Amino acid sequence: MNDAVDISENVLSGKVSAVEITKTTLSKITAKNKELNCFTELTEKIALQDAANIDQRIAKGENPGVLAGVPFAVKNLFDIVGLTTLAGSKINAENLPATQDATAITKLKKAGAVLVGTLNMDEYAYGFVTENAHYGATHNPHDLQRIAGGSSGGSATAVAGGLVPFSLGSDTNGSIRVPAALCGVFGFKPTYGRLSRAGVKLFSSSLDHIGHFANSVRDIATIFDVLQGEDEKDPVCTKRPPELCLPQINNDIGNLKIAVADDYFTQKAETAAFEVVQKVAKALNVREYITIPEAKVARAAAFVITACEGANLHLENLKLRPEDFDFATRDRFLAGALIPNSWYIQAQRFRRWYRDKIRQIFANVDIIIAPTTPITAPLIGQEKMVLDGEEILIRPHLGLFTQPLSFIGLPVLSVPINQENSLPLGVQLIAAPYNEALILQVAAVLEAQGIVFYEK
Amino acid sequence: MNDAVDISENVLSGKVSAVEITKTTLSKITAKNKELNCFTELTEKIALQDAANIDQRIAKGENPGVLAGVPFAVKNLFDIVGLTTLAGSKINAENLPATQDATAITKLKKAGAVLVGTLNMDEYAYGFVTENAHYGATHNPHDLQRIAGGSSGGSATAVAGGLVPFSLGSDTNGSIRVPAALCGVFGFKPTYGRLSRAGVKLFSSSLDHIGHFANSVRDIATIFDVLQGEDEKDPVCTKRPPELCLPQINNDIGNLKIAVADDYFTQKAETAAFEVVQKVAKALNVREYITIPEAKVARAAAFVITACEGANLHLENLKLRPEDFDFATRDRFLAGALIPNSWYIQAQRFRRWYRDKIRQIFANVDIIIAPTTPITAPLIGQEKMVLDGEEILIRPHLGLFTQPLSFIGLPVLSVPINQENSLPLGVQLIAAPYNEALILQVAAVLEAQGIVFYEK
Repeated sequence: MNDAVDISENVLSGKVSAVEITKTTLSKITAKNKELNCFTELTEKIALQDAANIDQRIAKGENPGVLAGVPFAVKNLFDIVGLTTLAGSKINAENLPATQDATAITKLKKAGAVLVGTLNMDEYAYGFVTENAHYGATHNPHDLQRIAGGSSGGSATAVAGGLVPFSLGSDTNGSIRVPAALCGVFGFKPTYGRLSRAGVKLFSSSLDHIGHFANSVRDIATIFDVLQGEDEKDPVCTKRPPELCLPQINNDIGNLKIAVADDYFTQKAETAAFEVVQKVAKALNVREYITIPEAKVARAAAFVITACEGANLHLENLKLRPEDFDFATRDRFLAGALIPNSWYIQAQRFRRWYRDKIRQIFANVDIIIAPTTPITAPLIGQEKMVLDGEEILIRPHLGLFTQPLSFIGLPVLSVPINQENSLPLGVQLIAAPYNEALILQVAAVLEAQGIVFYEK
Repeated sequence: MNDAVDISENVLSGKVSAVEITKTTLSKITAKNKELNCFTELTEKIALQDAANIDQRIAKGENPGVLAGVPFAVKNLFDIVGLTTLAGSKINAENLPATQDATAITKLKKAGAVLVGTLNMDEYAYGFVTENAHYGATHNPHDLQRIAGGSSGGSATAVAGGLVPFSLGSDTNGSIRVPAALCGVFGFKPTYGRLSRAGVKLFSSSLDHIGHFANSVRDIATIFDVLQGEDEKDPVCTKRPPELCLPQINNDIGNLKIAVADDYFTQKAETAAFEVVQKVAKALNVREYITIPEAKVARAAAFVITACEGANLHLENLKLRPEDFDFATRDRFLAGALIPNSWYIQAQRFRRWYRDKIRQIFANVDIIIAPTTPITAPLIGQEKMVLDGEEILIRPHLGLFTQPLSFIGLPVLSVPINQENSLPLGVQLIAAPYNEALILQVAAVLEAQGIVFYEK
């Protein structure tokens, strides 16, 4: 399958029309979604209108934007005019339709992209598996018996299964990076506050990010550049002017200081997860190691904050109709509601300490490399995994390596790495806040070296 | 009594030596403190050394600073080298002595001021009365049967009683402004984060401010200018460069937009509290009114955050030795420990909404006027007051008008207003964050008009 930039070039040059692309995409989705269960709704009518409009503008000699005619889909927690925003929940299905598109969707449409539907997720984004009690499990395109990961599982599968060239998701503790790794696609979670969350159903406000999935570094960069920029509708959104981040091919990264995360990030995973990290280190000629201190505590603190902030948003429904929640999220939300305020305050206090420590580390290093998930995609319904001889639950623990990083809003790209005879696995490229451009530059080098996962 | 600027001018010009001033001050304290109980410790030896050093420097032709030879004292939650920082607590008396002075003390000493001792307060700064179960009640110099207010009661009494020309305190919900009003002195709480809290025992970190008490506007301004500036020891301290705020006498304030707070701020107080507000409004020729929305909710949210953050700092001791707390703070700390995290999160969320609302208000007004306390100083031991026909507790409710303002870190000066045949009362001058200079300019005008409390 072509990537988004390819498609847009073909549409802009008249090789193919946006309407043709959209029709092909819609019928591919209809055919494949039966077994993948990644889409929860199609927006056929508006998609075809939008595509026809793109074609007309091109016929008039206008340029509809860098994503002209490129189909995309979004996790069903993004508002879309006229649709009810589910956020994976049965309760939310009772809500009125949204009256405005989320800012991210507005920006993508302005750049010519064509929205074709909404994607499955864990209820209220609270999970790493996308086995949704109301809307079913999303399947991994590489093995239909296996999960896609979560909570943005539908977004990862839709791209990995070739249904759309890119999709939007959200990441609170790893919800973009985990499914990206398990499905073998790029998953990008930029700096906290860099992309507007206006029109996105929140899960845990101080941790929520939006981001995207795609099959190439240039797609990830192009879409990031479209999504960047201040948004007065989102009080968290940064006021920094956008810095375009499309990486230059053949750019020298020899002057970048890159290190592999050791300690916490070299424990509790299957060998394969460390092998892909070593493969990336070798490709980049990296021999340095660096320790992120107290990553385990950071993860615990992220859990506490997530549970408290998450429960706060759903308190009324937890009291009045707990039976209408997905059993998998209900217990955790209820637990969150009962956590003493002191745990929350302590977690926030630790967070400031940890943020300052990590800032110091980034004074001496530009990029840190770490595994994305501890294992390849487990089977649907599988409850436990064994790590370092200990049997632990899969659902809460797939974010072992992602949680300590999103906790303080660092930008991270999960890069899918080629591994023979293996299901997909990812490697996280981590930078200091607002250093997305460095990450994309390093990812472009890895891509050029051919170690990135490309099966399609 | 002369103000601090007077004293410093006399010392610098050689009219009087710093050692003489210090000796006089120490013997005045020793004599008067028996009935006032505002000092908890004297730092005689170091004070006399520091004073001698100032005199030597002046003899050599050096300038020891704008506060040369001016005695001052601090609420006993400021660290002083060699002294154990009590923060009004019996438990803290077991701690080792501090090894560094608080930043505020270092700055004042650098400007030539001479530290003479530490001052009584409510335990852990949690109270508005300074009736401390361990160290006794501080008495109001205007009527020894009455409280000084709190929690910085010792700091207010020390200045109002003429023991020192100025003192330091801290304000979380009104702990500078309330005792300043009840004792008839100026009490200044600058913008949250503007003055360094390094070396100050915290009570509720997201609400705590430090500030000072004095008898004249020029003293308040001069001391503020000495205290300003970034401090790398305090992560909360602003990186803004200082802006000197000493007001120009006879400066025209005709172009300032000033309004009286109505609604919440015109209810629940004795008539006298509103009379002093009207006196100020008349003196400034102000006829405009302005509504601060949801002030009552803001106060409730401030209570929740205070109780939660306060309890968090004392959890271990609350579990292990509750009997060693002052009975008046123990109950509130314990209640704070049991508050659900959701209340805390909700209070913080409301706080952002409220901050944004008030910012909008300050787009149309420069200074807001409101009463400081609802009543004049009640009797020591008095538990209740009657406001609008309702009998309510004094201890938690003296901050009725101060809490909704410190909640979002606004700078506020409590100005003591002359009222015949009445105990002292104060009026709050409130500005947008970082607009301390405007407040001081308006205060200087009030002072020049002679409506400011001057009994000494």
